[in-house]
Amino acid sequence: MTEAADAFARGEVAAEALVRASLARIAAQDGKVNAVVRLDREAALEAAAVQDKARAVGTVPGPLAGAPMMHKDMYYRAGKVSTCGSAIRKEFTPKATATVLQRLDAAGAIDMGTLNMAEFAQNPTGHNAHHGDCHNPWNLDYCTGGSSSGSGAGVAARFFTAALGSDTGGSIRLPATLCGVTGLKATQTRVSRAGVMPLSFSADNVGPLVRTARDAARFLGVIAGRDPKDPTSAPEPVPDYEAALTGDVQGMRIAVCESYFLDGADAPVVTAFEAALATLKSAGAEVTRVKAPSLRAVAAYTALVSRVEGAAIHAHWMREQPGDYATHLSARLFGGYAVPAHLYVEELARRGPLLREFVAETLTGFDLVATPTLRTRVPTLAETDIDADPANWSRFMAVSANTRPFNYLGLPTISVPCGFDDRGLPVGLQLAGRPFAESTVLRAADAYQQVTDWHRRAPAL
Amino acid sequence: MTEAADAFARGEVAAEALVRASLARIAAQDGKVNAVVRLDREAALEAAAVQDKARAVGTVPGPLAGAPMMHKDMYYRAGKVSTCGSAIRKEFTPKATATVLQRLDAAGAIDMGTLNMAEFAQNPTGHNAHHGDCHNPWNLDYCTGGSSSGSGAGVAARFFTAALGSDTGGSIRLPATLCGVTGLKATQTRVSRAGVMPLSFSADNVGPLVRTARDAARFLGVIAGRDPKDPTSAPEPVPDYEAALTGDVQGMRIAVCESYFLDGADAPVVTAFEAALATLKSAGAEVTRVKAPSLRAVAAYTALVSRVEGAAIHAHWMREQPGDYATHLSARLFGGYAVPAHLYVEELARRGPLLREFVAETLTGFDLVATPTLRTRVPTLAETDIDADPANWSRFMAVSANTRPFNYLGLPTISVPCGFDDRGLPVGLQLAGRPFAESTVLRAADAYQQVTDWHRRAPAL
Repeated sequence: MTEAADAFARGEVAAEALVRASLARIAAQDGKVNAVVRLDREAALEAAAVQDKARAVGTVPGPLAGAPMMHKDMYYRAGKVSTCGSAIRKEFTPKATATVLQRLDAAGAIDMGTLNMAEFAQNPTGHNAHHGDCHNPWNLDYCTGGSSSGSGAGVAARFFTAALGSDTGGSIRLPATLCGVTGLKATQTRVSRAGVMPLSFSADNVGPLVRTARDAARFLGVIAGRDPKDPTSAPEPVPDYEAALTGDVQGMRIAVCESYFLDGADAPVVTAFEAALATLKSAGAEVTRVKAPSLRAVAAYTALVSRVEGAAIHAHWMREQPGDYATHLSARLFGGYAVPAHLYVEELARRGPLLREFVAETLTGFDLVATPTLRTRVPTLAETDIDADPANWSRFMAVSANTRPFNYLGLPTISVPCGFDDRGLPVGLQLAGRPFAESTVLRAADAYQQVTDWHRRAPAL
Repeated sequence: MTEAADAFARGEVAAEALVRASLARIAAQDGKVNAVVRLDREAALEAAAVQDKARAVGTVPGPLAGAPMMHKDMYYRAGKVSTCGSAIRKEFTPKATATVLQRLDAAGAIDMGTLNMAEFAQNPTGHNAHHGDCHNPWNLDYCTGGSSSGSGAGVAARFFTAALGSDTGGSIRLPATLCGVTGLKATQTRVSRAGVMPLSFSADNVGPLVRTARDAARFLGVIAGRDPKDPTSAPEPVPDYEAALTGDVQGMRIAVCESYFLDGADAPVVTAFEAALATLKSAGAEVTRVKAPSLRAVAAYTALVSRVEGAAIHAHWMREQPGDYATHLSARLFGGYAVPAHLYVEELARRGPLLREFVAETLTGFDLVATPTLRTRVPTLAETDIDADPANWSRFMAVSANTRPFNYLGLPTISVPCGFDDRGLPVGLQLAGRPFAESTVLRAADAYQQVTDWHRRAPAL
């Protein structure tokens, strides 16, 4: 994304050429991947032509100008259908445009359309009964991860330079990991959610899937910051994230939690993760194994809170047309109606104290916590299909074990590619920092990418 | 309060004299009223002596200097027991002091101790099984209103000049009304709740019970404003509320809702309320009868939200020692454990849209809504005692019918005395304004008090 935008800004490439290359790749390969829901071909070419004209007279229309993007089909644009991955909203046409889309537009990003996703962003795998499953570009039988499946698969397949995803339990970081790209979930409340389909307002986050930490830094700088339309958006000032990318991790202190995040991890994942730690160490970071409290309960809290909020958000449709959901989704939503309210309140009320405790006990003396983003190897679509066989449930739920706690804690967390497993599918390194320490998270991820090339590898489709 | 503080500031009265007069009235009459839980006699006299010394050299230690106060026994002061009106917390000694107490201290208020209240602030009548019931100074058989029973009764009996109350469904405005004093619940989030016993975080408010609107204005100016210790406290700047007291209501537009607030109202209450409207009219306000949507559902939402949050806050004690609550309170708390979480989320989620609707449909073209604070005449302690007879339940719940909706809506609302019923007990006028329009609410209440003397009448004890 930054490479394309910078080349455009320097006059080395036309926006139209970038868009045409994107369109050509999509035309050639999306039949296999199924990342795209709606392609706005003509609008994208027109936007590119406008930018090229501006560039010809010396104007660069913003830091993302020239960069073709597509976004998860849950970011509302006035007058355009937003299916949210569902049948229920197959004709839903919002009246207002999401703040993040307005900010991307203002920064010159070229929006080419919308992307496949889990139905109502509710699963971590990439299955979709209405648009069809999204397929991993590294091996079409495998999961892309979800819920931002098209965002991960499309960036990996070089269909476009960047895509918005949303992350309530891992839905940015998981497709980033499973597809071998970079995904950033900022601090809870860092990015406006106005005009974005809600899944669980206590845990929803908006963020980019891109190729590099530098891309994520520039993208976040554009979308972050207070938005009067989202009263939950944080008033903290937005720093220059790209300026924080020093390219080194000298003196950075990274904690590795001995328990939870590696429990039952697959050997190829552990191997890639340990190699990534060694790389960070040789680049100057201190890496320390720490005993941290298990985050099993924290992961369960996120799940309960999201289940209840999902049940509330979907209450009307679940009463009127439950048959229009995929079977597994209505079954999961039904579960949300049986939770007593005081448990929900109690689990939300633990959030502040648990965050304080995690920051004090695990992040004191450390800048970052490192974990594998996904403990297991990338699963296949078949072995995580819970509509086909409910016995796949445990594999389905295991996908988000390492990402979900950071939604409850609300911490800024990035996933970057850090190798491949024995079946040739990507492995991801997850780095989490203190609240609003996005600059630190991005700096470490960027430094790692300066000395590795996992993020440069592209699948052969 | 302002009269005492201003007289002290002008050197017309010594702080010690004010404190000694307070102590004398308490000694003479609290045996009948039972407003006081803990009297810090020596500390108050010492504080007064310090202020008198400062005054002697020309220093006034703040806008509340010289004013003796006592506060509802749920405002934490480090090292001092805060019973919260309960047996469970009879020895609870907090380690930190509430922000509002710190702000009152800094403004020179003299804190003489703590006051009776409903157990855990959970009833609107003034009954307390642990400290004994609080009695209305106008007639000892009658309710003081609750939950800030000692605050209302003590200000009415001239035991002190001002008292903190808290208001989750009417707990400031009700004792103000029933005891014939002035009570202000500001906009939800206007005042910090750090160091204050929580009842229901979605609806809890901190505010003053005082004699006049001017007292309330000065008191609010001291306690309002952003507090880093309470992340829910509003960042809006705090205006000079006293400067807004122009003494007139010329051109002010007041709406009177035809439905709900007068449904089943007692005739003496309606008579006093109509007389108050006529007074406001002759003072220059426009008074208009409007058809507003019934607030019955809104009142029910407040009740459900508070019930759930109360159940969550009390979950530990309700598991471990339910027998230590008054029977009616444990029964009410038990009810909170059966509410499905999605209903709680749905009812909270309606809050924004309902507030928007109320402001747009009822407050468009109007500055204030006027209602009687309590629809009925002041009830007796006997006829609202639900421990003695559960058949009293409907009378018990009816007490907060007119106050509760403004907690769900979060609007700034004041209650001022506006007459007496046929049994000689006070009637209250409630004025509610737009979010953060405390100045408007206070200005109208002050103008009303400029042309009436209900707030000057004192009970003969």
